[in-house]
Amino acid sequence: MSDPDRRAAAVRETIEQRRRQINEAFPDYLPIEEPPQLYEAARHIIDAGGKRLRPTIVMLVAESLTDGEIEDYQAVEPISSGNATDSPVDIMAAAISIEVIQSFTLIHDDIMDDDELRRGTTAVHEAYDLELGVLAGDTLYAKAFEYLLETGASTDRIVRASRMVSQTCTEICEGQAYDINFETQSAVTLDEYLQMVREKTAVLYAASAAVPAVLLGADDETVDELYQFGLDIGQAFQIQDDLLDLTRSSEQLGKQRGSDLIKNKQTIVTIHARQHGVDVDSLITANKRGAVTEQDIDRAVQTLEDAGSIAYAQETAHDLIKDGQDRLAVLPAGTPRDRLTDLAWYLIEREY
Amino acid sequence: MSDPDRRAAAVRETIEQRRRQINEAFPDYLPIEEPPQLYEAARHIIDAGGKRLRPTIVMLVAESLTDGEIEDYQAVEPISSGNATDSPVDIMAAAISIEVIQSFTLIHDDIMDDDELRRGTTAVHEAYDLELGVLAGDTLYAKAFEYLLETGASTDRIVRASRMVSQTCTEICEGQAYDINFETQSAVTLDEYLQMVREKTAVLYAASAAVPAVLLGADDETVDELYQFGLDIGQAFQIQDDLLDLTRSSEQLGKQRGSDLIKNKQTIVTIHARQHGVDVDSLITANKRGAVTEQDIDRAVQTLEDAGSIAYAQETAHDLIKDGQDRLAVLPAGTPRDRLTDLAWYLIEREY
Repeated sequence: MSDPDRRAAAVRETIEQRRRQINEAFPDYLPIEEPPQLYEAARHIIDAGGKRLRPTIVMLVAESLTDGEIEDYQAVEPISSGNATDSPVDIMAAAISIEVIQSFTLIHDDIMDDDELRRGTTAVHEAYDLELGVLAGDTLYAKAFEYLLETGASTDRIVRASRMVSQTCTEICEGQAYDINFETQSAVTLDEYLQMVREKTAVLYAASAAVPAVLLGADDETVDELYQFGLDIGQAFQIQDDLLDLTRSSEQLGKQRGSDLIKNKQTIVTIHARQHGVDVDSLITANKRGAVTEQDIDRAVQTLEDAGSIAYAQETAHDLIKDGQDRLAVLPAGTPRDRLTDLAWYLIEREY
Repeated sequence: MSDPDRRAAAVRETIEQRRRQINEAFPDYLPIEEPPQLYEAARHIIDAGGKRLRPTIVMLVAESLTDGEIEDYQAVEPISSGNATDSPVDIMAAAISIEVIQSFTLIHDDIMDDDELRRGTTAVHEAYDLELGVLAGDTLYAKAFEYLLETGASTDRIVRASRMVSQTCTEICEGQAYDINFETQSAVTLDEYLQMVREKTAVLYAASAAVPAVLLGADDETVDELYQFGLDIGQAFQIQDDLLDLTRSSEQLGKQRGSDLIKNKQTIVTIHARQHGVDVDSLITANKRGAVTEQDIDRAVQTLEDAGSIAYAQETAHDLIKDGQDRLAVLPAGTPRDRLTDLAWYLIEREY
């Protein structure tokens, strides 16, 4: 194996291990209670899969801050004893909280877009109905706060972490609203796009990195740098998503390739292209919107490549990952920090 | 004026005063931020009206616990100095939080039921669109926690109040899910119905009464009794809603009279009637579901009255209000407690 291949294999193993632990913990934190239909609907896309990248970040940050001395993700000795409680801090609860927020946004997104498929299975509102889709999302929303409020950290830390998470949820909604607005605008700037991505996607990565630090009593600089790390890599993650939509086959994506172009969604690629003279609106329309072939997409992507827009997006993502990795200097050197560094790198190396 | 008339006028004035203060505070707590469309959608049904009964309960409990010495609903001296902070406790923030939870459930309910009207105006998903409806509800959901987390109470109290509110939100979802299930069941018992009402409706009244007590450091007995007070009067409130649907005209209700019968919704009235030999499913179907006249409803209501089901519901509501009022003995005697007693009475005297 080449070096990048070896590194990719190692990071996949890191993610896979944490993913398995999170999946094992889920039935304990989110059991099927009464009424079962509601809880089955709430568990539907959680049980359907997912890479669990965000909770993995929660776990890796906690591993780093506790020097790896964290059993079953219960931190017995918070790093600063300033206002530590006697009880262990349940980092797994924080990890589950973050994943549950991600899940509720996916459920409500699929309702808003009327998307029928998610993670290779039917979306919740399709598998059940609209009512249970809305309610399943709303139930997970409340549960996310319940988990956080029950981590056993000191109440000062819990309040701070809960504020961060509630503001994160507000910003996700704002980002979504911007994203919808942008679909009917052609003059979106790159700054506006990156602001939208920060709110829609990156703030949850930021919370994933900062919440465990808050709960474990890390100092303000550490919390702030970890938050910025999350913002950086979260934006890169979204840019990589935009790129994959153009460069991977429909089969690999599990959805129509070039769907962003077809739906007239603004991405960093199309915004750059428009600013460099490409008639983005005609890339697909000029051919035949509705019955789009792989060749149509190929031609469009070639135009975007010729304009330097694909390369620009790739460079921006790389720069963001580099910035994020640099911020990890605030963590103690060691295996957990290296894993976080590799995970950040993986976000733009992944192919799905 | 007769005595009940005078009492009704007094309680309407109490509610009206608090309602005005809450409405004045709303733009400060929920300003139109960026993106404006999202926040306008979030404010849509809040600005459209509402009696603000739940936040009024928050305010009256705080008035009672501070002996009326509470200016602008900022409690400078929490009643127990045990773990009091130096900053005042922002009771208005807690009141707004409760009203915002009520608002997000209404917005999402209207989406689930595809109801087009709410408070005499178009529902949010109709006035804007489905996407902004879902997002407006989700934004208010996060804001409810933000307000609570920023009340300035000690963090112990904030965590306890936030737990109560997050569990309340979970229970509201569970109650909604039961309500939906019941529409396709005919063998619902009165106990199952009251359990559903407790979760769907009463827990938010319970939180309205208990949260200010938690934030102000009241003892456990006071918190528990106020919570039970809310459960009692919240159930009575829902029963009164069920009764009004049968006994007020469509014009007074602002929606089709007898809509519960037409939609086959289970209420305490229909469950009692079914248990006493009334063929409830045929009450409307036998005539002409779809083009129902006031006469059809009159006949159905007469049947329910003859079975004693209307009187049974009225008695149950009265008993619940009486139980709730008795629990207020835990509060210091005085004007605020009298107002709470009257407000409870008003919940089943109201005609809309």
